[in-house]
Amino acid sequence: MNGTDQSKFPTVVIIGGGFGGIQVAKQLKDKPVEIILIDKHNYHTFQPLLYQVATGSLEAESIAFSLRKNFDEQKNLRFRNTEVLGISAETNTVHTAIGDIAYDYLVIATGSTTNFFGNKEIEHYAMPMKSIPEAMNLRYLVLQNLEEAVLKPSREERVPYLSFVLVGAGPTGVELAGALAELRNHVLNKDYPELAKEEMKVYLVDFLPKVLGPFSDEGSKAAEGYLKDMGVEVLLGVKVESYDGNQIKFEGGKSIQTKNVIWSAGVMGVVPEGVSKDVIERGNRIKVDNICRVVGSSNIFAIGDVAAMITPETPKGHPGVAQVAIQMGQTTGKNIYKIIKGEQPEPFKYNDKGSLATIGRNKAIADLGKLKFQGFFAWLIWMFVHLISLMGGRNKVIVFINWIASYVTYNGGSRLIIRNFKREELVEKDEQISKPD
Amino acid sequence: MNGTDQSKFPTVVIIGGGFGGIQVAKQLKDKPVEIILIDKHNYHTFQPLLYQVATGSLEAESIAFSLRKNFDEQKNLRFRNTEVLGISAETNTVHTAIGDIAYDYLVIATGSTTNFFGNKEIEHYAMPMKSIPEAMNLRYLVLQNLEEAVLKPSREERVPYLSFVLVGAGPTGVELAGALAELRNHVLNKDYPELAKEEMKVYLVDFLPKVLGPFSDEGSKAAEGYLKDMGVEVLLGVKVESYDGNQIKFEGGKSIQTKNVIWSAGVMGVVPEGVSKDVIERGNRIKVDNICRVVGSSNIFAIGDVAAMITPETPKGHPGVAQVAIQMGQTTGKNIYKIIKGEQPEPFKYNDKGSLATIGRNKAIADLGKLKFQGFFAWLIWMFVHLISLMGGRNKVIVFINWIASYVTYNGGSRLIIRNFKREELVEKDEQISKPD
Repeated sequence: MNGTDQSKFPTVVIIGGGFGGIQVAKQLKDKPVEIILIDKHNYHTFQPLLYQVATGSLEAESIAFSLRKNFDEQKNLRFRNTEVLGISAETNTVHTAIGDIAYDYLVIATGSTTNFFGNKEIEHYAMPMKSIPEAMNLRYLVLQNLEEAVLKPSREERVPYLSFVLVGAGPTGVELAGALAELRNHVLNKDYPELAKEEMKVYLVDFLPKVLGPFSDEGSKAAEGYLKDMGVEVLLGVKVESYDGNQIKFEGGKSIQTKNVIWSAGVMGVVPEGVSKDVIERGNRIKVDNICRVVGSSNIFAIGDVAAMITPETPKGHPGVAQVAIQMGQTTGKNIYKIIKGEQPEPFKYNDKGSLATIGRNKAIADLGKLKFQGFFAWLIWMFVHLISLMGGRNKVIVFINWIASYVTYNGGSRLIIRNFKREELVEKDEQISKPD
Repeated sequence: MNGTDQSKFPTVVIIGGGFGGIQVAKQLKDKPVEIILIDKHNYHTFQPLLYQVATGSLEAESIAFSLRKNFDEQKNLRFRNTEVLGISAETNTVHTAIGDIAYDYLVIATGSTTNFFGNKEIEHYAMPMKSIPEAMNLRYLVLQNLEEAVLKPSREERVPYLSFVLVGAGPTGVELAGALAELRNHVLNKDYPELAKEEMKVYLVDFLPKVLGPFSDEGSKAAEGYLKDMGVEVLLGVKVESYDGNQIKFEGGKSIQTKNVIWSAGVMGVVPEGVSKDVIERGNRIKVDNICRVVGSSNIFAIGDVAAMITPETPKGHPGVAQVAIQMGQTTGKNIYKIIKGEQPEPFKYNDKGSLATIGRNKAIADLGKLKFQGFFAWLIWMFVHLISLMGGRNKVIVFINWIASYVTYNGGSRLIIRNFKREELVEKDEQISKPD
């Protein structure tokens, strides 16, 4: 590898430039280490706003940030845009598509991917939304199905194209449901005069009896109310049985004709090859000790969605949210430097700042410890927090302008179909989705 | 077709939502006609800024505008997002991928595509840049080749990845050369500390003895000077012989090792199947009379890049620029209404407002009739004209902010690789390029 063996400083290899990985790198700025950051994308993704990319309200570029650009001032970091094939802990090596990379310390910050819980048919036909290429595919699918619907002569034939079923009523499902309902309520008639607003249906399905499971009951109830007001059909306590690309069936016999099933019902860790099966926890996460060190290892750390820190206070590990990844990244970065200096590392302590979810204009839920807000004020908090968290001043300004434009016109976003995502090729979707990655 | 046979108004079918096609539609707003606008994309492309999408300075969405959104207030227009398979003049029918569409008046506004002058090898390996998917492919190729270069251990091995050869020194080639030179001068070192600025080479090649052929000698000279100042190697009077994906050869024996050849050396009209071969002119354009009517037809018009209006004043037809398409569209829209009313159509008269090209920050050429500017003032004119011509207020604001950000930081744009464009799959490029379309 270029520029790695010249140095006598210890090499810290970070796999993944998500919320956690970039914090590790930042903490080690100007420290006597050589950092190699590996990501299969050349950008960081601000996942909380992916759903707005999927509905065409925001451009992909507004919620992504070049990793090279982000670290162009950090002299001790090299970026490698490649795929990790596996790790060999015994030789301290990461195997990648561009060759082997040796490490002294390794941080696994690979995040999570959609969990279809082993149902291959659903995995094949339903759309995930965990990455920018996936969000773009989803956008093209939605828009193309609206175009298809225009061409169908009868209401009945239009049903499957105009029915949108979101499985999983966590923040992603709720926010996407709200955004699709707004598309229906404010845009459909203008852009597609051939279609009646009532023909487009948005369903939000969860096997739990409430939306926004981990939120307060107060917030959850408010969210459900907002969704219903906007015309979303909320189906709770309902389990999906099958989906064949045309019809989704639920336990108990109910079914919906639809060509649009979006799956956000669960995630699972992305574990590199070579990590011992003995340390894999529920949800395909890597078991770590209280300093985020992989159990049984001395120099490998795992943080964020891929890490499971099982303690008496967190018997299932921490929630898979950006805040956990960020804080684990900060602690791990500091700890690696402490270990190098021969100091005692400090245990990780999660500072839960609360949860936010938006449903639509003027509507959001904010559970901030004891403070709970719903409605307009929560929506202002949601916007503020997301804007300041976005990477890059230009992105902040552009997202802000887009939001203002959408708010004023009720008709934001560009809604361009730049790549065709062909329904009839849906059987080849795996390939379509892996290609962009 | 939905919504077409209910009406007793004459049906005007417009193929193509480019500069010309949308003007025809606009002129017929509120007129007693039924308009069907067909485009294989669901958006209008502002082609003059495509090169900024290719270099990653602007997002694709900033220079494209949803055709549905653009016409959402025009009640007599229906949009069809489909491909035209051909036309049958004898039955007044357009054949499309979604069925046949009958017309009373047809406007062919299909524009032009890259002309490789029959060289299949060059067509196969060189990159065109006439559409948004092509500009995106080009962006990904450039960025991926920079990533590849980082991994090559020797300068010699890096040469083909870091050499950019632009064939054709018209406005597209000149503006792209300037943008790539700025990428090299201001961004390369920051983002790719492994690479030396001097290693990246930008070549601009033309078989003519001057850059910006149709411009004034004064403007052409100034442009050449700016390019050289920025480090572009300008090779004039040079004819390309071959390009095999690794090496471009010129007549006379010179050659350059490169994996990046961008071809903007010529265009040719996109003529639908079914147009008589007898009316096809040089450059694959359709011969039209002085009211843009296809020679030999009474109700088919052709406008913009695909039309050749041969007159004593324009022996080669009009130049393939946006202004010609816009003005032909306006005249044709008006004339169709006049013909319907039984009035005399008015002949087309081109009002040449001049030519603009930019080379980089503070550097542009403006040939405005007798007024000729070069440098900073021309650059201000260029920016102003392009901003006001962009469709959509949001696009204007976002492009303006991007330009300001780039100007201030010397480091604009996101430069994300969202879809992989694999070099080793370049032999399958045709498929890659046709897929996005």
